[in-house]
Amino acid sequence: MRDAYHEELDALTDKLVEMTRLVRSGISRATTALLDSDLHLAESVISQDDEVNRLFAEIEASIFDLMARQQPVAVDLRMVITALRMGSDLERMGDLAEHVAKITRLRHPDSAIPAELRSTILEMGQIAERLVTKAGSCIASHDVESAMELEADDDAMDQLHRRLFRVLLAKDSKWAVEQAIDVTLIGRYYERYADHAVRVARDVVYLVTGSRPDMSAL
Amino acid sequence: MRDAYHEELDALTDKLVEMTRLVRSGISRATTALLDSDLHLAESVISQDDEVNRLFAEIEASIFDLMARQQPVAVDLRMVITALRMGSDLERMGDLAEHVAKITRLRHPDSAIPAELRSTILEMGQIAERLVTKAGSCIASHDVESAMELEADDDAMDQLHRRLFRVLLAKDSKWAVEQAIDVTLIGRYYERYADHAVRVARDVVYLVTGSRPDMSAL
Repeated sequence: MRDAYHEELDALTDKLVEMTRLVRSGISRATTALLDSDLHLAESVISQDDEVNRLFAEIEASIFDLMARQQPVAVDLRMVITALRMGSDLERMGDLAEHVAKITRLRHPDSAIPAELRSTILEMGQIAERLVTKAGSCIASHDVESAMELEADDDAMDQLHRRLFRVLLAKDSKWAVEQAIDVTLIGRYYERYADHAVRVARDVVYLVTGSRPDMSAL
Repeated sequence: MRDAYHEELDALTDKLVEMTRLVRSGISRATTALLDSDLHLAESVISQDDEVNRLFAEIEASIFDLMARQQPVAVDLRMVITALRMGSDLERMGDLAEHVAKITRLRHPDSAIPAELRSTILEMGQIAERLVTKAGSCIASHDVESAMELEADDDAMDQLHRRLFRVLLAKDSKWAVEQAIDVTLIGRYYERYADHAVRVARDVVYLVTGSRPDMSAL
């Protein structure tokens, strides 16, 4: 049987996994709202971000409390430190989903995404969901090998991001400046979302192995 | 006289202040390079970011070591936790200065910034420098009141950011899509740089007072 202290650490893990579920739902609905110009759905993403922030505040509070009372060492210390960092990354992912939803709201009833770019954005949304789902499994299972898989998905996201720019810059297309701005920002939000998911996975690697993959590029 | 433990905490503060100096120099040179299309200066920003990353890695390593050996509590615990977070924000600010420099390099010998926007970018660079200078003083002096001042500078940055978009979207101007993309990204980099500086200042407030200002909007 786990003692109260380790039950608290387990509860922390559960809350982080819950955060991954919330920010997955956030980016999933943000992508659908963006592609369907669905104002109601966009609003739901914006209001749900408060829940993500609240959950992160709870995680922070319990970590500070736990550190002060239990003075964790070794792997437990790594657990609470990485939990703090993972929570911060997940909180940011919630913000980024919210940013996508805010552009949808700003352009409603028009669409921020021109027809030529719909399939690219759809794929970016799917990869973002896949990344955060895998990040959630990594947190829950402490599986280092699947944490490594996220790097490949992130490369796919970077390729889609470059494709967005190629389409924007194609010689024969005539974009309005507003469209170029929207697509540039939206592309950046998805790309950053993916980077934060990879950071979470790298923190799982650190937690399990005690050595840190290079984070500087993210 | 300070004991060895508190000397280690002081050394941590010194290293964070040193990080603010490096990332201030980074954004300062990145802005000049951007406005003067100075490839050599842009390259120096890009190569100096390694130094920022190395310094942050040193800070992280000494924090983990310190936590494992000394098991800090109360204000010392807040010190090491916030140092970790401030270091992470400063590391990101270095990345953002590097991103600005990379756009300069990409467009060289052309300028990424059209004449109409030069003064706005210059002001954004000045505010970014002011913010990180103040963040550095706050870290060094633990001055809560000056930490609060950063919010006003951040508001000024947000106004300049909106001005960029207004100029881009003005009816009579004809921008190339490439220009719109560059300006959108550069504007975003300065705005995020400012957000991270404010997060650093808010962490100083937390460190000193023990209560956390709302971070969710940053």
